[in-house]
Amino acid sequence: MKAVYNRIKETVFQIIEPSKGNLASKIVDLIIIVLIVANTVIVIAETFDLPEGVSKAMGIFEGISVIIFTVEYLLRVWTSDLLHPEMNPLKARLKYVFSFMAIVDLVAILPFYLPLVFPIDLRIIRIMRVVRLFRIFKINRYTNALRIIALVFKNKSAQLVSSVFVVGLLLVIASVLMYNIEAEAQPDAFSNAFETMWWAVSTLTTVGYGDVYPITVAGKMLSTVIAFLGIGLVAVPTGIITAGFTEIVTEEEKAKKAKEAQALQQNQTDCKSYCPYCGHKLD
Amino acid sequence: MKAVYNRIKETVFQIIEPSKGNLASKIVDLIIIVLIVANTVIVIAETFDLPEGVSKAMGIFEGISVIIFTVEYLLRVWTSDLLHPEMNPLKARLKYVFSFMAIVDLVAILPFYLPLVFPIDLRIIRIMRVVRLFRIFKINRYTNALRIIALVFKNKSAQLVSSVFVVGLLLVIASVLMYNIEAEAQPDAFSNAFETMWWAVSTLTTVGYGDVYPITVAGKMLSTVIAFLGIGLVAVPTGIITAGFTEIVTEEEKAKKAKEAQALQQNQTDCKSYCPYCGHKLD
Amino acid sequence: MKAVYNRIKETVFQIIEPSKGNLASKIVDLIIIVLIVANTVIVIAETFDLPEGVSKAMGIFEGISVIIFTVEYLLRVWTSDLLHPEMNPLKARLKYVFSFMAIVDLVAILPFYLPLVFPIDLRIIRIMRVVRLFRIFKINRYTNALRIIALVFKNKSAQLVSSVFVVGLLLVIASVLMYNIEAEAQPDAFSNAFETMWWAVSTLTTVGYGDVYPITVAGKMLSTVIAFLGIGLVAVPTGIITAGFTEIVTEEEKAKKAKEAQALQQNQTDCKSYCPYCGHKLD
Amino acid sequence: MKAVYNRIKETVFQIIEPSKGNLASKIVDLIIIVLIVANTVIVIAETFDLPEGVSKAMGIFEGISVIIFTVEYLLRVWTSDLLHPEMNPLKARLKYVFSFMAIVDLVAILPFYLPLVFPIDLRIIRIMRVVRLFRIFKINRYTNALRIIALVFKNKSAQLVSSVFVVGLLLVIASVLMYNIEAEAQPDAFSNAFETMWWAVSTLTTVGYGDVYPITVAGKMLSTVIAFLGIGLVAVPTGIITAGFTEIVTEEEKAKKAKEAQALQQNQTDCKSYCPYCGHKLD
Repeated sequence: MKAVYNRIKETVFQIIEPSKGNLASKIVDLIIIVLIVANTVIVIAETFDLPEGVSKAMGIFEGISVIIFTVEYLLRVWTSDLLHPEMNPLKARLKYVFSFMAIVDLVAILPFYLPLVFPIDLRIIRIMRVVRLFRIFKINRYTNALRIIALVFKNKSAQLVSSVFVVGLLLVIASVLMYNIEAEAQPDAFSNAFETMWWAVSTLTTVGYGDVYPITVAGKMLSTVIAFLGIGLVAVPTGIITAGFTEIVTEEEKAKKAKEAQALQQNQTDCKSYCPYCGHKLD
Repeated sequence: MKAVYNRIKETVFQIIEPSKGNLASKIVDLIIIVLIVANTVIVIAETFDLPEGVSKAMGIFEGISVIIFTVEYLLRVWTSDLLHPEMNPLKARLKYVFSFMAIVDLVAILPFYLPLVFPIDLRIIRIMRVVRLFRIFKINRYTNALRIIALVFKNKSAQLVSSVFVVGLLLVIASVLMYNIEAEAQPDAFSNAFETMWWAVSTLTTVGYGDVYPITVAGKMLSTVIAFLGIGLVAVPTGIITAGFTEIVTEEEKAKKAKEAQALQQNQTDCKSYCPYCGHKLD
Repeated sequence: MKAVYNRIKETVFQIIEPSKGNLASKIVDLIIIVLIVANTVIVIAETFDLPEGVSKAMGIFEGISVIIFTVEYLLRVWTSDLLHPEMNPLKARLKYVFSFMAIVDLVAILPFYLPLVFPIDLRIIRIMRVVRLFRIFKINRYTNALRIIALVFKNKSAQLVSSVFVVGLLLVIASVLMYNIEAEAQPDAFSNAFETMWWAVSTLTTVGYGDVYPITVAGKMLSTVIAFLGIGLVAVPTGIITAGFTEIVTEEEKAKKAKEAQALQQNQTDCKSYCPYCGHKLD
Repeated sequence: MKAVYNRIKETVFQIIEPSKGNLASKIVDLIIIVLIVANTVIVIAETFDLPEGVSKAMGIFEGISVIIFTVEYLLRVWTSDLLHPEMNPLKARLKYVFSFMAIVDLVAILPFYLPLVFPIDLRIIRIMRVVRLFRIFKINRYTNALRIIALVFKNKSAQLVSSVFVVGLLLVIASVLMYNIEAEAQPDAFSNAFETMWWAVSTLTTVGYGDVYPITVAGKMLSTVIAFLGIGLVAVPTGIITAGFTEIVTEEEKAKKAKEAQALQQNQTDCKSYCPYCGHKLD
């Protein structure tokens, strides 16, 4: 009995676990990917005003794919203990449930069940489906690259948060200053410090939509300072992230170099420095 | 008598010094943070036109918080000698007074006392209160990250200033050139080289509000050159700052490596000082 | 007979292969460059509405240069086996045909022969001629620099693609969110999530044309988040590419260091194989 | 006679050579700086329409400062042989004349003498005076920082030029493509590929003035691609320059490390590995 259960589980695991050799698994992967992409397209398509029939059809399609995603998710959790045979099943499953990809999967399907719990309409959250696009990484060679990018952000999170904090500080100061300078000349665009923040953002980020900009000399001067400070502050995250990437590269190289060094040393100690027979030094 | 004074001082120090274990300290920290955030909100809120009552209320709130901040500041200075028991009290206090955080605190409260000294209205300077937001760093794990960012700017200040200088030079040249090219076609937007600088800034920083831009072919060509030079020059601070961050990372690694090297060396250099076989001294 | 054939081939090779000493080769190079630049100018000139005669003349000039380019290409392929004497001719030729420069040359001439095959008009593709500008690199000192840039992109392709993917993900999410927030206030600019993507692009890339921007508070808040995320995400490719450049520099240095190390090692490891004093063999 | 000549020359050298100890030199430096700054201000001031008298006064001031700058330049050249006592005077002078600072000085005064040679009006070139602002570096601690920045650009010139070349290529291709896509919808803004280049520039550099932007779907798609390519291509110079800065830092560190390593090695070889008296190995 148990044996059968295990064999089934094993088979299911073989099938749903991506990038496994057998054909069945490949087909399942393909179906999942197609569903994910189709759902993403629908998320965008839904914003067009389409004939009744189409949107109803899309609604049904959504429902079906959510069910499929749910089944897939449950099967993954069920079989996840096979990922870590050494652990006890519960631990292994919890470990999987809190893995990045598992959370992505959950986030993708949850919004459709929330309305059953809360009466309020949460249609917006549904767009979280698109995050499932991350799944695509699981079955191609980019997983590692994405891992590195994520790692950089993780390593440098403290520094990045700090720089964001400083930017926020600058935003507040710039906005209040600009309000005091420009409000008289342009009461509408700079009606209060909060509104002015919109100018500060578009200047600091160098987006510069051009809907609000100072017209007074003092305002332009402040804007100049902010724009250049913006460049400087924008340089900080770039610097932090770049350092992060360089660091990872360096670490990999250091590991390699260390091995080489060891080999070299080994090689050097093979060299006799005296004659074992007469004890004479060999120079 | 002195003992009591010291015990009180010690207790006060324990309480106001952030991130100390005891509860009282934690509560004080919390109050301070809340006050700082509240004041920041008020700084922005004041720019809205609010009913008489509200703005009066906010004014009173400001007053109270300034008093609290002042008391806090004085207590900090008073107890600051406990930070460096090895120094003599006066030296220790001065050291604290000129520390970054102490200056931030002073800058935050000073503007409210200046009007008592100078008759002129200095309401603008009051926004300096927001700099107290830096305090928040004192009680979270980001202090170090912020320290690194500040360190990078300090290490590279000379190079950064130089690059800013070069940018300034380019601004002047670009503005005068553009004025001579574009003034005829757009006498209003490019009324003189100083006004033209506004275009130069928004182009060099790639903000591009879109309120002023060349319309003549020659003007567009110059604008193109400036825009690309802008990218190049913007790349310089980025490069400098990035190098700064990489440097710090490298230094930390070097420090680690150095320790390892030392250990190794130690291990290698404990030469025998006598021959275990013939007992002869080895010099 | 064969000897003559070989001598001719050798001569042709000497002439068309760039940066060869002899004068004939230099002249051919010059002609080719002039033709390439002239063709690039024409590509742009064609977009002006010119008098009948001029455009006809340009058409003829195009035809001639294409013929010349074709002959040149064929000669290059014919003689390419001399580039790798060690290989057998066919292999060598194939190797050349699939080299970057050879493909560039082919891409530049192909569009003119396609219409003979397909009836449809492919005038647009003709602009591919301009890619021949890469040829210019072949005969100046920048080849290596360009090689390095290309190498960086190749080394980091996986990471770059991943970051682009993440940006794409953000674009979709941002667009759908913004559509839901802003559509009511600006039904024309934000008519659907696809149209809204245009705003997301101009914000994420910090281009900020200013044709579409949010006017609601919620919209401005989202725009702020996107703009700052944009900076962060833009910092990623910069970081990746910078790491790539630093890496190459490091590798070159490592190569140098490795050689030195080897020399040193060599120097250390030539152990004596016998004792010069007692003549005993040392194993 | 010669002695007197030499003493005078020596004294002049002492005075005009910046950052010399004696007072006279300091005063001369100050005057020069003031003149340079004043001239820069005038260059900008001239673009305002000022009363007859003022502009005449400024003209006179310009004349005087040019004379002073000329005298200074000649004196510098005359005494420059004292900079390299080891060389023969002529060589030393030529070396100085072609030094960066000397060229800057010449460029600053030349435009005022050119009209005497050529009849044509060269007022524009006069703004080259502002380059003299570089002089300010000579007398402050930023010389080195500026030297490093210049060095980075010099080291990486080949790569930077290549990347600019690639950008140029992209500009041409993008413009011609966009013209073919957008010209029908906006015949005025995209009247020909050359005009369209203005859009390509403002998109690639992410300036985005907002005077020209695509309105068709195809155009917006191309614009999206260009904008993201822009980010990528902008990342290249940043990467190159950053690598340059990191390189310089690394080199300095490598030099230091090398010295340490040497010391360590020295230290290790001081360790006897056998007993000189009984020849026993010491392990």
